[in-house]
Amino acid sequence: MKSQTKTQYFSSPLYLESGRILEPYHIIYESYGTLNADKSNVILVCHALTGSHHAAGTYEGDRKPGWWDGIIGSNKAIDTDKYFVLSTNVIGSCFGSTSPMSENYPSQSPYRLKFPVVTIKDMVHAQKQLLSDLGIYHLRAIIGGSMGGMQALQFAVDYPNFADDIISLAATYATRPWTIAFNKVAVEAIRKDPRFMNGNYEKDAFVEEGLDGLAIGRIAGHISYLCPDAMDNKFGRNYVNNDGLFELFGRYEVERYMEYNTSNFSKNFDPLSYLYIVKAINTFNLARGYDSLYEAILRIKARVHLISFSSDHLFFPEEMAHIHKMMQRNKQESSYTQVESTYGHDAFLVELDKFAGVIKEVFTKDN
Amino acid sequence: MKSQTKTQYFSSPLYLESGRILEPYHIIYESYGTLNADKSNVILVCHALTGSHHAAGTYEGDRKPGWWDGIIGSNKAIDTDKYFVLSTNVIGSCFGSTSPMSENYPSQSPYRLKFPVVTIKDMVHAQKQLLSDLGIYHLRAIIGGSMGGMQALQFAVDYPNFADDIISLAATYATRPWTIAFNKVAVEAIRKDPRFMNGNYEKDAFVEEGLDGLAIGRIAGHISYLCPDAMDNKFGRNYVNNDGLFELFGRYEVERYMEYNTSNFSKNFDPLSYLYIVKAINTFNLARGYDSLYEAILRIKARVHLISFSSDHLFFPEEMAHIHKMMQRNKQESSYTQVESTYGHDAFLVELDKFAGVIKEVFTKDN
Repeated sequence: MKSQTKTQYFSSPLYLESGRILEPYHIIYESYGTLNADKSNVILVCHALTGSHHAAGTYEGDRKPGWWDGIIGSNKAIDTDKYFVLSTNVIGSCFGSTSPMSENYPSQSPYRLKFPVVTIKDMVHAQKQLLSDLGIYHLRAIIGGSMGGMQALQFAVDYPNFADDIISLAATYATRPWTIAFNKVAVEAIRKDPRFMNGNYEKDAFVEEGLDGLAIGRIAGHISYLCPDAMDNKFGRNYVNNDGLFELFGRYEVERYMEYNTSNFSKNFDPLSYLYIVKAINTFNLARGYDSLYEAILRIKARVHLISFSSDHLFFPEEMAHIHKMMQRNKQESSYTQVESTYGHDAFLVELDKFAGVIKEVFTKDN
Repeated sequence: MKSQTKTQYFSSPLYLESGRILEPYHIIYESYGTLNADKSNVILVCHALTGSHHAAGTYEGDRKPGWWDGIIGSNKAIDTDKYFVLSTNVIGSCFGSTSPMSENYPSQSPYRLKFPVVTIKDMVHAQKQLLSDLGIYHLRAIIGGSMGGMQALQFAVDYPNFADDIISLAATYATRPWTIAFNKVAVEAIRKDPRFMNGNYEKDAFVEEGLDGLAIGRIAGHISYLCPDAMDNKFGRNYVNNDGLFELFGRYEVERYMEYNTSNFSKNFDPLSYLYIVKAINTFNLARGYDSLYEAILRIKARVHLISFSSDHLFFPEEMAHIHKMMQRNKQESSYTQVESTYGHDAFLVELDKFAGVIKEVFTKDN
């Protein structure tokens, strides 16, 4: 499957939760499958912190498919033979939608730190605007993992009649201080890196040599995406060949992994976008804007399917179970699946076979 | 109780596990209580990563007592009316024992990165030399938490007949990649901080303004010392007064805590020492030098008391239980206590009341 990328430009303002306005703005997105005549077969896919709209398929000349290619495609759990799948890049991200490095109209220079704080609610709001522009006023389903799972839940609360089914993986109802603390490593490391220059770096400043601060922050990220068992299985106490055990900077395999992955990452992701998206994750709280979490969840009309992973050390299974219990008490339609996994939080990107069945099940009623 | 500090100088070499030699070297230590005539009442206390020999009592003009003052003192769990308690600063630490900032004899300049890698085995070896110099050839007990618990266990394995009882808290038999990964944040953040200058900073360079890299690494440390529940209890999702929720750098309480504690810390701890001690923790493996972990543990003649904490997210309870199970299978004398706690790894410094009884119990046979 070849991926197609489009950009939608909005000249109307996006009213943000902060009271600020983003105007103009644009959203880059991909779609897979064909929109049917009555536009009743649309599934929205939401990405995580460092993900993008490139959820499935491969680009011309590229080998690596999108981040959820294993479950989106012909005859896959999200079947593009039947459904029109939309995947957008969130506002604030560096992969093509309006972000801190976009022009701060009418000036021609980037927003940088003048970019307004964007919340999960705002990301969802922007996606809703895109759908309106495309003439789509109802969704068959919304699905996402981690920050994508937050968006799916926020959608369910803010626009109760908009989707039939919500599938949220490895997420939570409000970000806990544990996660905020992991993110804090990145915030401090980025801010204190002299090359960050308070956001006043040149656009391509880190293409050759990534920003150290972002790489360092990303190590904390990787820790939170894995878990002790996953690391035992993946690295054990293996030591890098030729790095003497008694050399101060000799490395264990896990250290090499962290260095390699984070240094590459820091060349390919914008530090300002990282700060803004992390802020969106930190401020995520389904209850905000409503009287309580209970009141927020009570608004939901969609069927909600919650999928957690037993070894998730970032958003723990009990957080997802909490939503399910509330919905059950309210006699709202929800299901909860805890997938046994040793992959930690990353399981939602890795162990697709273990939850593809749950997703398929959601769509069997369409057969 | 007033603390007394002494320093012991060694002109004989310390042979290190790496094959390198430390010569001369010195160890700073404190003692509490009185050595009895037959020197049979000595208890050795071992400190953790950023701890020091100042385990109990208060210095003249100081208000803050030593780090385990709650359990070391007259009539306390480690009763200084009965026992002579010794607490040394480990080799490599910046609180007075030989460290990377010590003179690299015969030159008058500091070792810096020429300092040899020191292991837990080496730390224990040095302590053993100190005890020999003091004419102490047998210990009533050795006790420590975290890296101190590693030292207690290493002592038990390397010098099987040296102590009657070993009390190890919140430690492990070999450091897992999970912990090495947390340490990696500090290693990278320190190395990549321009003011670290590859270790060539001036001795007092960070007294006024701490090294950012050390502060950033320490955030990862604090995460690993706490746990999700501890953070919920301590911080919740509280936001710092007057930090606008929609300000990019506005802070949650947990973020303020991290900033405050780590910035202070980075003024008071030497980054080179941090790198070297972290290396000692990473390389900790009771099995090294023996055929297997089984063979290492089989050497132990002391009674071993293992205390873990249910919410410890750095060294998990099952790691301590693993040692106990091995010893039980071998019919060696061991006990295992899992303390219920929501304080995470830090519990060994905080919830003293919850395990003081276990320690007292060890010494009841002396009554």
